[in-house]
Amino acid sequence: MEPFEKAASAIDSLFSRSSLPAGVTRVVPGSVEAYWPAGFTLSGINAGIKPQRKDLMLLLCDAPSSAASVFTTNRCSAAPVELSKRHLAASNGRMRAVVCNSGNANAATGSKGLLDATRMAADTAAEFGLKAEEVLVASTGVIGQLLPVDRIAAALPALGAAAGAQQWQDAAEAIMTTDTFPKFFAVDVALSAGTARIAGIAKGSGMICPNMATMLAFLCTDASIEPSLLQEHLSAANAVSFNAITVDGDTSTNDMAAVLASGRGPVVERGSEDSRLFGEALRAVMTMLAQLIVVDGEGATKFVEIRIEGAANDDEAQVAAMTVANSPLVKTAIHGEDANWGRIIAAVGRSGASFVQEELAVWFDGLEILKPGLDAGFSEEEAKKVISKDAYAIRVSLGGGPGTAAVWTCDLSMRYIEINGSYRS
Amino acid sequence: MEPFEKAASAIDSLFSRSSLPAGVTRVVPGSVEAYWPAGFTLSGINAGIKPQRKDLMLLLCDAPSSAASVFTTNRCSAAPVELSKRHLAASNGRMRAVVCNSGNANAATGSKGLLDATRMAADTAAEFGLKAEEVLVASTGVIGQLLPVDRIAAALPALGAAAGAQQWQDAAEAIMTTDTFPKFFAVDVALSAGTARIAGIAKGSGMICPNMATMLAFLCTDASIEPSLLQEHLSAANAVSFNAITVDGDTSTNDMAAVLASGRGPVVERGSEDSRLFGEALRAVMTMLAQLIVVDGEGATKFVEIRIEGAANDDEAQVAAMTVANSPLVKTAIHGEDANWGRIIAAVGRSGASFVQEELAVWFDGLEILKPGLDAGFSEEEAKKVISKDAYAIRVSLGGGPGTAAVWTCDLSMRYIEINGSYRS
Repeated sequence: MEPFEKAASAIDSLFSRSSLPAGVTRVVPGSVEAYWPAGFTLSGINAGIKPQRKDLMLLLCDAPSSAASVFTTNRCSAAPVELSKRHLAASNGRMRAVVCNSGNANAATGSKGLLDATRMAADTAAEFGLKAEEVLVASTGVIGQLLPVDRIAAALPALGAAAGAQQWQDAAEAIMTTDTFPKFFAVDVALSAGTARIAGIAKGSGMICPNMATMLAFLCTDASIEPSLLQEHLSAANAVSFNAITVDGDTSTNDMAAVLASGRGPVVERGSEDSRLFGEALRAVMTMLAQLIVVDGEGATKFVEIRIEGAANDDEAQVAAMTVANSPLVKTAIHGEDANWGRIIAAVGRSGASFVQEELAVWFDGLEILKPGLDAGFSEEEAKKVISKDAYAIRVSLGGGPGTAAVWTCDLSMRYIEINGSYRS
Repeated sequence: MEPFEKAASAIDSLFSRSSLPAGVTRVVPGSVEAYWPAGFTLSGINAGIKPQRKDLMLLLCDAPSSAASVFTTNRCSAAPVELSKRHLAASNGRMRAVVCNSGNANAATGSKGLLDATRMAADTAAEFGLKAEEVLVASTGVIGQLLPVDRIAAALPALGAAAGAQQWQDAAEAIMTTDTFPKFFAVDVALSAGTARIAGIAKGSGMICPNMATMLAFLCTDASIEPSLLQEHLSAANAVSFNAITVDGDTSTNDMAAVLASGRGPVVERGSEDSRLFGEALRAVMTMLAQLIVVDGEGATKFVEIRIEGAANDDEAQVAAMTVANSPLVKTAIHGEDANWGRIIAAVGRSGASFVQEELAVWFDGLEILKPGLDAGFSEEEAKKVISKDAYAIRVSLGGGPGTAAVWTCDLSMRYIEINGSYRS
């Protein structure tokens, strides 16, 4: 299958498991006229950082846009992460462009790396007539090598010339590393003063266990919304989307999710029903992008939702869910289609969440695997029917508490080891 | 290579990387007359829990011995773990026997599992004329299946008949699951009143990331030492031996390490030089057993020491070392013999340990890979010489702090996935 067909098919398959909130409709992929939200153009080209594939992405706003962002919590955060934080502060959350390269993370590159990121922003600003602090910079790829800034500078005119409101596929391609398909999604949300569009692109696909931040994701909307309210919506949605996925438990040095709002569409006021709806729509786009990252996790052949219920509180549910989702023994059992509930409760048992063994219950989709009292009288044949599917849910109840969490994970396959035993990322 | 030759060769190879404390000499493997410490006999036979291989182990003391033990912190701890804790308390740390089966973990088996463990202890006590609370019970193998207690009971006479002071190889074999070789080690330590012997057996080799406890390990000594002092030495040594290894980050439901002291040899008094020496010797035996578990980790082809220096304190060094040691990206790079220092510092960066990026330094054995200032001007060729070895050390300095830690880990190979995609453990 071609990459774009793969992406569309993955989105269809994820849709079959969930639905959009009321008032929210899907735009991309699907609509013939899939323009990016008004006020934005994008492009993606090859700048010679990688041999053949697209490696430089531009997202341009025609006027200062409200911006919000979350960043990696990794202490070895990359130069572009540090610079983008400064620019967001310096511009009071009003940005004009995002420039992002793949093939080189500009991470662990020290003071030279920060100079390089600064130059990448300055060159972009000069090329498009912006202030440097209006440019967000991002990089992804190999850690510890200096960024080829001259190549990036030389490619900027072509990058600008290629920009358009329909170039989101090029843009999504240009930020890929080991991803096997580009990740994008867009919705319309019906607000009181009209329809707002929210669209985004993202990339995975290894070193994925975002923590209060994400892998690279860039979102745009034409809504008119203040930076501070946009940040609140981004942070809230981030907690249950990008922060709820894991491929390998490794939190990257370069994680970043940013959203820009051009203000060309309907107004979103704090505390309004529109604000609630906008938040739900943003969350729907981010959740889809996050789930696409898991579907395309390095070597992944299965997409599994880990849902914890009945925990003492949501935090304990989250830590239990993440522990199950990251357990190599659970992930290899998922890969081997083994109904190995023992490994699941062993992972829950070491997670630190509080519970009484005898109250545990486990389901694979709707099939009860373990009943309270450690009664595992399920049919192996029925279980096999569920776990041989490409996507399913593992649900664990810890008891009678109010805490719940859902995270999404993939299996651990030999392909993951093949990819990471040779790729220097 | 035969399993015992593999074990001996692994011990030799580990010896080439470290040395025993002064006053401590190796007994097993090596000595022709490798008797277990005075006061103990052992055996290992097949009781029909597994089709062919030995699956039932007995360790018998000829009189009540001082006993100390550490157990898993997994909240889904197995029935034998719970029962053994009760027995240690009930007997005031004076034990006569350890009985252990492989092939079935008696974990997640509820009240029936606790009854089964209780019967296993009672049957053993009856067979050998002991009190039930003088028997430690352990199990390892598949989670969530009921223990075939009738087979164990039927095998007890043969288990007793086979017991001897030289049957430690049989005993080490009988507790194996996916281990490819039995794990054993023994030393003599010269104390002021004579020589004490410390010997132990252990098993791995998946679900290995002990936390305040260990996989199964049973240690014996002829030293004369109070249970409380023995417990202090065991806990201290445990923190830097079994708690300093990881294969896959999964803490088992059945981890247990116990030490029995028959009192037939020299006296070890609290606060004495002998006590310090005894502690060092115990630590040496436990460290060797722990490292053997890593060497024989599921699918492991590399043994790597992760050493953190210059941390703010030992706790931060430990968490940084464990984060590196458990990172799938680091472990696959080790497997692929890729000098991927970026993944190492990325793991340190997400560990929570505090440091400044620019002060990080990384060595592979003696070879400097990353200098402070993020200067990675090393020779790939020289690096390859180190990382193509079967065993080496990755050393990371976080700065100028006093904190240090060492943990031992293995690579993540396709064989791990093969083993765990099919084995229901």
